[in-house]
Amino acid sequence: MNMKEEKMDQNKLTIAIVGGTGKEGKGLAFRWGKAGHRVIIGSRNLEKAQLSVNEIKDLLPPFSKLTGETNESAVKQADIVVITVPYEAHRNILSSLKNELKGKIVIDVTVPLVPPNVTKVQMPMDGSAAQEAQKILGQDCKVASAFHNISYDLLLKNTPVQCEVLVCGTDQQTRQTVLGLVKDAGLTGWDAGPLENSVVAEGLTSILININKKYNSRTAGIKITGIESPSS
Amino acid sequence: MNMKEEKMDQNKLTIAIVGGTGKEGKGLAFRWGKAGHRVIIGSRNLEKAQLSVNEIKDLLPPFSKLTGETNESAVKQADIVVITVPYEAHRNILSSLKNELKGKIVIDVTVPLVPPNVTKVQMPMDGSAAQEAQKILGQDCKVASAFHNISYDLLLKNTPVQCEVLVCGTDQQTRQTVLGLVKDAGLTGWDAGPLENSVVAEGLTSILININKKYNSRTAGIKITGIESPSS
Repeated sequence: MNMKEEKMDQNKLTIAIVGGTGKEGKGLAFRWGKAGHRVIIGSRNLEKAQLSVNEIKDLLPPFSKLTGETNESAVKQADIVVITVPYEAHRNILSSLKNELKGKIVIDVTVPLVPPNVTKVQMPMDGSAAQEAQKILGQDCKVASAFHNISYDLLLKNTPVQCEVLVCGTDQQTRQTVLGLVKDAGLTGWDAGPLENSVVAEGLTSILININKKYNSRTAGIKITGIESPSS
Repeated sequence: MNMKEEKMDQNKLTIAIVGGTGKEGKGLAFRWGKAGHRVIIGSRNLEKAQLSVNEIKDLLPPFSKLTGETNESAVKQADIVVITVPYEAHRNILSSLKNELKGKIVIDVTVPLVPPNVTKVQMPMDGSAAQEAQKILGQDCKVASAFHNISYDLLLKNTPVQCEVLVCGTDQQTRQTVLGLVKDAGLTGWDAGPLENSVVAEGLTSILININKKYNSRTAGIKITGIESPSS
């Protein structure tokens, strides 16, 4: 790993959000920008990245560290890379950024929905999108997965989000780092174990879409019960 | 299906609990007995079944309809059959009861934990225990899955259970019937979609065990947020 220890100070992280012009990416960029992290929104299209930055900057305090770059340039500068792309683009984006991602923590937010039947859990052959990412990137990256079940519209609002975050990842220290970022985003996160468990967090999204449809809602989420919240 | 419509009156169900002498089975038997259903605890060992009945009868009102039988005899008399066996016994029990289960609703409660690493999601080849059950039993049974995440110790107590229940099953009417039984057990249930989604409900148990270990708890569960409870 070429990650330097002093760069991993949780208070001074540089976070690249690949495919960050979608609502997931913008929501997370806003929350982390507000928490004082340096955030780079990445896109295949530089202009689109910068448009998203302008959109979010208005919501952030002055001097917030938010910029827009190409995905490649964003990843090069980052300690932590968040992947928020539609599942159709998942394999290609990861393969094309493989070299730049070496030695980084990669947080995969991808949910492998298979239209038109998005209420049915249909995982890729490797077991989940996160395991697929690990396979593509190899052992040079520390892959985690998180934020699958959040209604992203809520992130751009300043209201508390009821839905909690399951964090999976093979490396316990990586999960801890990601849990710190969950907290910085104003959310409650839980250590959900190894990357193989990501099938549950990813698949829950289909179940929540089903619940939204059946019970006429838009913001179904999950919460862990029977135990005191770790961030309280 | 040889199930007669008038037998499916939700208020007069006969429920067999296969492997019902474990804490899952006893907890559910108690809750459904209290709700007025006729419950038959099944076991390979008749004497063990009857011992469990005696144990629970003390907690129930007089004239509750609770008996103990062999698994085979229990299943023959039932409208609904609940499978609460350790995963090691899952395939054999289902195969041996296949003929008796024809035309019944089967609620599979089995979680395919693979010791010693029970905090890691490790599903069987068919995708989940519930899909495996459907494959073994064929299309003559309506298979659903539910109750995977409940701390069963809580069921025998008269306290409200915070953990909610995800109900999967290919047939929507079957899911509705099971949701009725979830309510009768004093729990809140959600229509979680087709049987393929059972991987999430089953896998969540490994995540909850991980959370119990990491955060020093015994009763971690889940709850759906951002939407009003369907049973309220």
